[in-house]
Amino acid sequence: MSHSRIPEATVARLPVYLRALNSLLDAKISSCSSEELAASAGVNSAKLRKDLSYLGSYGTRGVGYDVEYLRYQISREIGLTQDWPVVIVGIGNLGHALANYSGFTSRGFRTVALLDADSNRHGELVAGLKIRGFNELSAIVHEHGVAIGVIATPAAAAQSVCDRMIEAGIRSVLNFAPTVLSVPDGVDVRKVDLSSELQILAYHEQRKAGLAAAEGTEESA
Amino acid sequence: MSHSRIPEATVARLPVYLRALNSLLDAKISSCSSEELAASAGVNSAKLRKDLSYLGSYGTRGVGYDVEYLRYQISREIGLTQDWPVVIVGIGNLGHALANYSGFTSRGFRTVALLDADSNRHGELVAGLKIRGFNELSAIVHEHGVAIGVIATPAAAAQSVCDRMIEAGIRSVLNFAPTVLSVPDGVDVRKVDLSSELQILAYHEQRKAGLAAAEGTEESA
Repeated sequence: MSHSRIPEATVARLPVYLRALNSLLDAKISSCSSEELAASAGVNSAKLRKDLSYLGSYGTRGVGYDVEYLRYQISREIGLTQDWPVVIVGIGNLGHALANYSGFTSRGFRTVALLDADSNRHGELVAGLKIRGFNELSAIVHEHGVAIGVIATPAAAAQSVCDRMIEAGIRSVLNFAPTVLSVPDGVDVRKVDLSSELQILAYHEQRKAGLAAAEGTEESA
Repeated sequence: MSHSRIPEATVARLPVYLRALNSLLDAKISSCSSEELAASAGVNSAKLRKDLSYLGSYGTRGVGYDVEYLRYQISREIGLTQDWPVVIVGIGNLGHALANYSGFTSRGFRTVALLDADSNRHGELVAGLKIRGFNELSAIVHEHGVAIGVIATPAAAAQSVCDRMIEAGIRSVLNFAPTVLSVPDGVDVRKVDLSSELQILAYHEQRKAGLAAAEGTEESA
């Protein structure tokens, strides 16, 4: 496996390619051209070929890419051929939804514990796991070798949860709380902002409305 | 308001700048340099200046950007100074979490209805709204001028929900269901894949582990 630096923008597209390849496999398609794969991933084919060249994958002229093998290459590059134990902290509606989310439990990720500060919830069964106390975090991280912590708490609790995760040895944090976390060097944080996507849609919606209005004006002129 | 085409990658960064500006305002900071804003948004400052130039915003030499005014410019460009009525379909744990998500209810978006196919849930109160039947979709879209539909159903139901949304006149769809939707031209779909972020973390985690292992080998050599 290569440890050379792949550009961050390429890394961000690998999950998109993986999803497209999974769809092709579901449809029993075993090979595809870069154009076909690019279209189903929603990128242009030159960019796709460039991205895949970082993985040493160039396809075969006249045949294209072997779907199964390319999926394996990308999975291996991302690290999904390993097992990633994950802990989710904050089992409100969102934490509950994440615990049940099929994309989390499949594809190399395994939720090993659900933690919540509210002791009234402890012992409650969610997605086959009992909710446990937040004070068990450190023991769970050591027992399971947890590498990735998911924060689904309210914003006010997120930074202290993050600090405790890092103390316990977690080096990658996925943050769903609507707040910015500060972390020391060597710790990766990804923030999921559910409203960003809505804002991007609003931009396009406004643009469509503006164009329609402009057309209306022209027609009436 | 400009209707010139802003590059898609810039549009995707506008919500990030907006979030950074909101944090600065919360910290009572009224002006900032492009370097400061770029750092808190996590992009390089040349890219930031280029992005903001599409909005006609160039800052003032030696002073930088007026935080409040830049926030207004970006909000207007995205369309957040308007009111966007949103409908959420599928009120399981995820739909429930979305209905309660503060980022959805603030910033120009207003959830006007929660719909679910399960008639046993109808009338249940979530985030101040009664869950209603999916068959009321068309009437609700017309009554409220709903522009954006959020799909939080299981994968199997998502395409038919999407089709019904489009029939009812919705032109922008935010899809949380783990499936690819096909839509006619003129309809925008954004897909939120909660596991993509986890995959990007796994890539970095693997890389860190690989580098640590390589260093260990060197030390023992």
